[in-house]
Amino acid sequence: MALPHSPEAVLIDLAGVLHNGDQAIPGAVEALRALRASGLPLRFLTNTTRSPRRRILTGLQGMGFAIEADEIQTAVVAARTLVAERRLHPHYLVHPDIIDEIGASHAEPDAVVLGDAGPQFNFDNLNRVFRLLMRGLPFIVMARNRYFMEPDGLSLDMGTFVAGLEYSTGRQAEVVGKPALPFFQAALRELGAAAARTVLVGDDLTDDIGGAQAAGMAGLLVRTGKYRPQDEAHDRIHPDAVCDDFPAAVAAILAA
Amino acid sequence: MALPHSPEAVLIDLAGVLHNGDQAIPGAVEALRALRASGLPLRFLTNTTRSPRRRILTGLQGMGFAIEADEIQTAVVAARTLVAERRLHPHYLVHPDIIDEIGASHAEPDAVVLGDAGPQFNFDNLNRVFRLLMRGLPFIVMARNRYFMEPDGLSLDMGTFVAGLEYSTGRQAEVVGKPALPFFQAALRELGAAAARTVLVGDDLTDDIGGAQAAGMAGLLVRTGKYRPQDEAHDRIHPDAVCDDFPAAVAAILAA
Repeated sequence: MALPHSPEAVLIDLAGVLHNGDQAIPGAVEALRALRASGLPLRFLTNTTRSPRRRILTGLQGMGFAIEADEIQTAVVAARTLVAERRLHPHYLVHPDIIDEIGASHAEPDAVVLGDAGPQFNFDNLNRVFRLLMRGLPFIVMARNRYFMEPDGLSLDMGTFVAGLEYSTGRQAEVVGKPALPFFQAALRELGAAAARTVLVGDDLTDDIGGAQAAGMAGLLVRTGKYRPQDEAHDRIHPDAVCDDFPAAVAAILAA
Repeated sequence: MALPHSPEAVLIDLAGVLHNGDQAIPGAVEALRALRASGLPLRFLTNTTRSPRRRILTGLQGMGFAIEADEIQTAVVAARTLVAERRLHPHYLVHPDIIDEIGASHAEPDAVVLGDAGPQFNFDNLNRVFRLLMRGLPFIVMARNRYFMEPDGLSLDMGTFVAGLEYSTGRQAEVVGKPALPFFQAALRELGAAAARTVLVGDDLTDDIGGAQAAGMAGLLVRTGKYRPQDEAHDRIHPDAVCDDFPAAVAAILAA
């Protein structure tokens, strides 16, 4: 496995790749500038669903990254688009900070949509969702990441609650963000890039690397964020390249 | 599939079989009396871990059931025994009402033990357990039931949180209560009964019926409690008998 020769587009995960919390990964601001100077088209794909896109952008810009709003593709916005396309009236179990972006729950829901509700994942809220799912409502989730890196260590991500609800209901959730194929395809379509000539840079072995490879792209794993050494010995998912951090990843891509 | 000819022991699940909440299933008190009159040895096996055994017993006696404390085998007591045998010092995430029975969490835990913590299943408590599990501590759970019947409908049981933590940690929990083989074997040993001549009566297709059958016993499903019609069309688990309720189950056992 190796990176494609002369890649024609790069997809970049945000948290854990460009920054940890509110700290830029050392050298990442400059590396992104170098990548842009190469002319390669870029998209930033995030499964973070505790913040609206506007605040994610402000955070990145505050750390010095030159990124524009329409370059960032979030699972929240993708969920909002999907709900509109299907004309659904969901019950939302999401973080309070994204209610303005996604919309309020309907009193007579015809679907369930989950985001990373964080502290809102409590027994009563989960039991309410459970009962709606047992009535057969569609089960749509923004992501199913296992965990993410916080300043004080790894923490549970929404995948815990998605997997738990799937177990108890016997239902299978439909994922909107990574590693769902349509989420990657939307980025490729916007960039006019072929999957086989595109590299995704991420710190999540399953949802970034596994997802990118399933979509026909190369997956470059960085050893920052939620990365753990065990990720390099996974029985099924083998990154096309592994680099210490985002600056090293950019160097590898520009050398390919 | 059928019940064993002349069964020599009967194991009985409690919630959903003898009672729903604080209401005895109609005719169940009399049916239990008739079963006792037959001389068949009995054990009551429960995965309910929100109450200590003493309170479960008081509730049953208050509904009119003639049951003694040492006939009731609970997942909480089984977990306490296992912790003592292995000399563990667990961190417990359990319901506050069983802390007196199971013991308090240790400050420097060498294992994690989960019960049905109910409202204590919140993000912070689950994240604490997650971090201990990621450090490699043994993961012991009293049960992994999907849901249970409450007066106002089905509700999430602890299995949701067990499955979710397994997903996020990549670890596999060790179950103490049903459907764990040792839990059934302990009851058979106490009764001196052969598995092939023993019938378990339960309302949980997976943990009662599937567990009993895996242990070599017959599984009799009742159409009360958490029973759902779909349970009779499961692709893998097929009860040896299905009866409308506990009185009908007793009649079937005594006729076998």
